Amino acid sequence: MTSFPDVPAFTGFNKPSRVEADVQDLNLRGTIPPELDGAFYRVQPEHQFPPKLGNDIAFNGDGMISMFRFKDGKVDYRQRWAKTDKWKLENAAGRAVFGAYRNPLTDDEEVKGKIRGTANTNAYIHGGRLYALKEDSPALVMDPASLETFGYTDFDGKMRGETFSAHPKTDPVTGNLCSFGYASKGVLTRDMTYYEIDRDGNLLFDIWFETPYYCMMHDFAITPDYALFTVMGMTSNWDRLKAGKPHFGFDTSLPSYLAVVPRKAGTSAEDIRWFTGPSCFTAHVMNAFQDGTKIHLDLPVAANNMMPFFPDINDAPFDPVAGATYLTRWTVDMAQNAEEYQSQRLSDMIGEFPRYDDRYCGQNYRYGWLVVIDPSQPVELKGGSAGGWVMNTLGMVDHQTGKEQKWWCGPVSSIQEPCFIPRSPDAAEGDGWIVMVCNRLEERGSELLLFEATNIEQGPIATIDIPVRLRFGLHGNWANAMDVPALEAA
Amino acid sequence: MTSFPDVPAFTGFNKPSRVEADVQDLNLRGTIPPELDGAFYRVQPEHQFPPKLGNDIAFNGDGMISMFRFKDGKVDYRQRWAKTDKWKLENAAGRAVFGAYRNPLTDDEEVKGKIRGTANTNAYIHGGRLYALKEDSPALVMDPASLETFGYTDFDGKMRGETFSAHPKTDPVTGNLCSFGYASKGVLTRDMTYYEIDRDGNLLFDIWFETPYYCMMHDFAITPDYALFTVMGMTSNWDRLKAGKPHFGFDTSLPSYLAVVPRKAGTSAEDIRWFTGPSCFTAHVMNAFQDGTKIHLDLPVAANNMMPFFPDINDAPFDPVAGATYLTRWTVDMAQNAEEYQSQRLSDMIGEFPRYDDRYCGQNYRYGWLVVIDPSQPVELKGGSAGGWVMNTLGMVDHQTGKEQKWWCGPVSSIQEPCFIPRSPDAAEGDGWIVMVCNRLEERGSELLLFEATNIEQGPIATIDIPVRLRFGLHGNWANAMDVPALEAA
Repeated sequence: MTSFPDVPAFTGFNKPSRVEADVQDLNLRGTIPPELDGAFYRVQPEHQFPPKLGNDIAFNGDGMISMFRFKDGKVDYRQRWAKTDKWKLENAAGRAVFGAYRNPLTDDEEVKGKIRGTANTNAYIHGGRLYALKEDSPALVMDPASLETFGYTDFDGKMRGETFSAHPKTDPVTGNLCSFGYASKGVLTRDMTYYEIDRDGNLLFDIWFETPYYCMMHDFAITPDYALFTVMGMTSNWDRLKAGKPHFGFDTSLPSYLAVVPRKAGTSAEDIRWFTGPSCFTAHVMNAFQDGTKIHLDLPVAANNMMPFFPDINDAPFDPVAGATYLTRWTVDMAQNAEEYQSQRLSDMIGEFPRYDDRYCGQNYRYGWLVVIDPSQPVELKGGSAGGWVMNTLGMVDHQTGKEQKWWCGPVSSIQEPCFIPRSPDAAEGDGWIVMVCNRLEERGSELLLFEATNIEQGPIATIDIPVRLRFGLHGNWANAMDVPALEAA
Repeated sequence: MTSFPDVPAFTGFNKPSRVEADVQDLNLRGTIPPELDGAFYRVQPEHQFPPKLGNDIAFNGDGMISMFRFKDGKVDYRQRWAKTDKWKLENAAGRAVFGAYRNPLTDDEEVKGKIRGTANTNAYIHGGRLYALKEDSPALVMDPASLETFGYTDFDGKMRGETFSAHPKTDPVTGNLCSFGYASKGVLTRDMTYYEIDRDGNLLFDIWFETPYYCMMHDFAITPDYALFTVMGMTSNWDRLKAGKPHFGFDTSLPSYLAVVPRKAGTSAEDIRWFTGPSCFTAHVMNAFQDGTKIHLDLPVAANNMMPFFPDINDAPFDPVAGATYLTRWTVDMAQNAEEYQSQRLSDMIGEFPRYDDRYCGQNYRYGWLVVIDPSQPVELKGGSAGGWVMNTLGMVDHQTGKEQKWWCGPVSSIQEPCFIPRSPDAAEGDGWIVMVCNRLEERGSELLLFEATNIEQGPIATIDIPVRLRFGLHGNWANAMDVPALEAA
């Protein structure tokens, strides 16, 4: 019998959903451009069963993949579990047998050593394959049309590390999937791996190195020549895990780093340059690019910890003002010997979940979009927000003009990560649409919104009603049908 | 592109849902008795596409079947379209091509003559088969485990009428499925047919007769020797259909009738006795039984029309007080020559959707349950009610003691038809549970509630959260797994 605990993570808008669903031709207002032919994939963490240890954090939920198939001005919706090894073991047991987030010490004895991944962080298409991703485990492969799970891949045995990032990038020049793993040799290890995989799914090479200290390495960036990693004080150790504390704790005594890794086979740890900076919080990356010998990395940065559920390692109280993230540019010059990166704030919007026109990955780029917390807008949420945040505004930055745009979703709503869709494969940068989930918290309903990408302030051009309540979700991506044979065949 | 009109039938809680869904092991509070092993099937009308003529009534929606599978103290949920011929034709067209409720004059030319049924009224198990039923068309057969649609049946060519009631009864003595059709020779015809079908699906015999006037014959009753039909002034004619009026209109000048049809092969129209009464409104039947030469028929009766969407035929305004239904006993004595039935009110509760312990079908029985509109309870609905009613209370009658019980569902909720589940095949009458859908209108959520059947006033013993918003639904039935091989095999 399944009875979820009566705690905020599983009540109100956050009530368990766990729905595998199909809806043809979703009800909508506005117009879907008929040339849109592809699918928007996104994922939400959802506990299949009540947490083994009682309460839990969203980040430990099982992955539930949503697919919105756009074609002929219509949108079909499909949702399925990412059936990880963990999901299958717990499904067979009829209860949770894995314990806390990234703490294998809390698992039932009979599942020790099994892959703990939840595939709950990103849904990514490369080479026509759908990958459901969680940074603590390998990539889970799913059918991009039926959303059936095939299982974990080790890329024909060539992936020697234990983990695969939830934030791979596709290099628009080579077409390669660029990814990495951290804790590559197991929980809490400082070992990292950089991977490149071609469009046919062949793992081309890997690069192994170590971080100065173990930390959450959630995202990274590429440029044509480099892979860029940020190291920040969200750390852990076995004492924390033995004590049953949250896996991560934030240590303000640790400096931040920017690692510059040459993207080529044969790179060794000695070839990597490490630039330092003061303690700060980083998670997602917008983009990066090279300008001569300079490298620019754009990412939201906060002065202190942004994640209250991973508290200060010395129990300092959470500071929401210091935890506010602002889009920031870190710059290094590879021709100089400086040991520190330079930092410049790019926007005064409090923003995270940064995205851009993916065709400009690693290239100098003009437009970026992000989820903004606009504290000037009224909030009228009864019974708390979804996922702990009140993400109330879609923001856009234009690096060329410095102009910004904002669209506020209303006082009882919460938006999720935006995703850019190019109008056509060769459309100009930013010429296309933004697709984004918006939860109407009071009505317990969810919508998929479509905007003209560079005119978000006019509001959505189409509002697509999703008749299943979507929970707090993480990342998602668009794929053109022409790039996904399984979609074309379905 | 699908855009439902901004009218009450498709907004607020009534927003289109159209979700085919699967959820394993629904989240619940309370306890499911572990001996419960079977499934509760119910159906809701849902328009697959925006109505061809703009607005529409719920009764014209397409059937969407929900199955709640109880086993080992857990409940799984599955929901699928009843894929009628109409559903398939419209799905292929990508829009509604059939028009108004029971008005074939409003259909697109290319579907003239096709079966217009929606299978939206009842989900009924007999002989291990699942029938999705609508009274204007044949019975649609579905897989009781997967909910896949097999298609319409004419019982190996033996069903010669065009229609099959949504309210068949299973005779607990013979095991036969007893059903009927009206408008058996086509829309608006006065021809009726009574059918009996054995557990293997063989149609054993039919009886043909005519009603005094064409009317809605939504339900009926059986006793061991008789089939009982009520005729009331909800009528129609071709002029109404040509004028585009609602199919049915209520004519207070028409008397009511109770027809007593001997349940045996070879019965002819001359063998039928017709008892008359004053104009009144009847729809569903609770039960009927014989007592010597007397026949008692228990059913909710209103002094005047209960259905505002089928208005008075002379445009008299709808009268909600006269339209209130009260459980009433009609009695006739077959040994006497009286031409009128006797009528006696059994309860002062305003109630409809009457049910009882189905093992007592046609037998003297003690307990009945029904949906009650309790006007003494506060209503706090914003934006209207679901389906036009505020069905706020579950009621129980005990014919032996005359005692009644009520359970109020709260100020912003609406309940649907209750269904009795026996504790075991040989449990005493009423020893078991009531299962019932309850919609929490403000939270846009639905629950399945389980009560001890003869102690409903203590409230539900289990509250099962349905993470998909259920719309206004009609009828449903329980089946023990042991009686449904497909369920046991699944």
